[in-house]
Amino acid sequence: MVTVYILINCTAGKTLSAAKKVAKIKGVKEAAAITGPYDIIVKAEAADLKDLGEFVIEQIQAVEGVERTMTCVAV
Amino acid sequence: MVTVYILINCTAGKTLSAAKKVAKIKGVKEAAAITGPYDIIVKAEAADLKDLGEFVIEQIQAVEGVERTMTCVAV
Amino acid sequence: MVTVYILINCTAGKTLSAAKKVAKIKGVKEAAAITGPYDIIVKAEAADLKDLGEFVIEQIQAVEGVERTMTCVAV
Amino acid sequence: MVTVYILINCTAGKTLSAAKKVAKIKGVKEAAAITGPYDIIVKAEAADLKDLGEFVIEQIQAVEGVERTMTCVAV
Amino acid sequence: MVTVYILINCTAGKTLSAAKKVAKIKGVKEAAAITGPYDIIVKAEAADLKDLGEFVIEQIQAVEGVERTMTCVAV
Amino acid sequence: MVTVYILINCTAGKTLSAAKKVAKIKGVKEAAAITGPYDIIVKAEAADLKDLGEFVIEQIQAVEGVERTMTCVAV
Amino acid sequence: MVTVYILINCTAGKTLSAAKKVAKIKGVKEAAAITGPYDIIVKAEAADLKDLGEFVIEQIQAVEGVERTMTCVAV
Amino acid sequence: MVTVYILINCTAGKTLSAAKKVAKIKGVKEAAAITGPYDIIVKAEAADLKDLGEFVIEQIQAVEGVERTMTCVAV
Repeated sequence: MVTVYILINCTAGKTLSAAKKVAKIKGVKEAAAITGPYDIIVKAEAADLKDLGEFVIEQIQAVEGVERTMTCVAV
Repeated sequence: MVTVYILINCTAGKTLSAAKKVAKIKGVKEAAAITGPYDIIVKAEAADLKDLGEFVIEQIQAVEGVERTMTCVAV
Repeated sequence: MVTVYILINCTAGKTLSAAKKVAKIKGVKEAAAITGPYDIIVKAEAADLKDLGEFVIEQIQAVEGVERTMTCVAV
Repeated sequence: MVTVYILINCTAGKTLSAAKKVAKIKGVKEAAAITGPYDIIVKAEAADLKDLGEFVIEQIQAVEGVERTMTCVAV
Repeated sequence: MVTVYILINCTAGKTLSAAKKVAKIKGVKEAAAITGPYDIIVKAEAADLKDLGEFVIEQIQAVEGVERTMTCVAV
Repeated sequence: MVTVYILINCTAGKTLSAAKKVAKIKGVKEAAAITGPYDIIVKAEAADLKDLGEFVIEQIQAVEGVERTMTCVAV
Repeated sequence: MVTVYILINCTAGKTLSAAKKVAKIKGVKEAAAITGPYDIIVKAEAADLKDLGEFVIEQIQAVEGVERTMTCVAV
Repeated sequence: MVTVYILINCTAGKTLSAAKKVAKIKGVKEAAAITGPYDIIVKAEAADLKDLGEFVIEQIQAVEGVERTMTCVAV
């Protein structure tokens, strides 16, 4: 099991709605809108690194308003 | 009362007009166009963190030319 | 109650030991060593912003190996 | 011969497809999708700096989904 | 007289053409396409800070392909 | 008259004490400890750019705990 | 097997000597001194994420002159 | 001939003295103290990339107060 933290930047004005949608994605344990250089922080779990790549890229990045994601893998 | 400083990046060519519009938003105490990695610096006050989230996201990010905002909370 | 995420950079070689110490600080709900531009991610709770300032600055920054902290406030 | 490493950011959702296309460009020795602040890392070789400028700008940046490239020259 | 260095990011694929156009703007002493986190570096001179604001924003940012400018003032 | 905003990073654990000392420096109009990538934000005024260089470098950077300063000039 | 790219910053003046030492560490496939925001780029392989954490932190960060490492995991 | 721009960060309080020393190094065409995220900007020329590596690392980084250098190669 791989645990990751994903720092997300959103299009201006889309943070709150994107955070709500991201929170409902399978594997996402937590999603919060935050101040500072990132707009949303997500904690998620994936089966392995391959799953992570497809999970992050295909699910979270498909949410409207998500502009950039940066994935940090717990080690 | 929460005091925040908001560092704003604008679409190329929109800084001066965006700064003027941001300065008129309720709660904004100061808005200046600046050199360096950010285009506008704003000082603003909100009643609490919930108010801040909605204030920043709904008012400032709705200004034409505002591309990204980074909020720094005074502690 | 204020919830914050704190992104921490450590002195080279001190990440794992610092993460263990940070995890024991009162108010810290979670502390994980991560890949990417930050070395540790922390989720913490403080009573209010004043408490946060003193909490972050006096407790986490006092841990050996903690070089920089960036606090992101949940909104 | 100039060896360069190119760190690429992609439009959300385009990383995997862009990485595959970049890998086929002449001069590209390696292209991998990665976690962290960049989406793809490329190792490439060019005859000289002039060639590099035209190579990077005209070939890689023309790939769909490539948003920004940062070139690091091996010294 | 104010001397400034302007670090410019361009839309992917527009660096070389933008550098040529920027080089012809009045007050620009030098414009070079570069590797690394910025795409073009410009040295320019303005009569004063007010002139600088209008010079940078209205002339350089109007060039096709210029996405962001960061101005550094010589002190 | 030149108005500047200075974003300051401090040595871990020194933010609050440094902010108090910076606030007393001549020309400093405001100094606040903040969350996010910078530790202190300062608003200051200098007679001209030469004055600014010497003001920033010699006064603020001499405060114990000040590690880096980034000056943004109001335009 | 986990493949990672590690972007390293060195103390001023230590890049070339650190790159040579890092290249000899077990698991490191490639280490090159580069221009731009990072000083050395490393390609390495680890058995799994746990191994990676200990590998990066204990071996590379122990090299004299290595100031910061940022690990990017191939996905 | 390789032309490079080097963006330098200095230890707090050392910018002006470091800029003067860097300006005297062979190959340096221009060195100016600047506002923003970097403290000094240098324009320099080297015979080739190998020369550049040794030139940057051995000469500029040896100047007292120089903490980090980022080299951008003109293409």
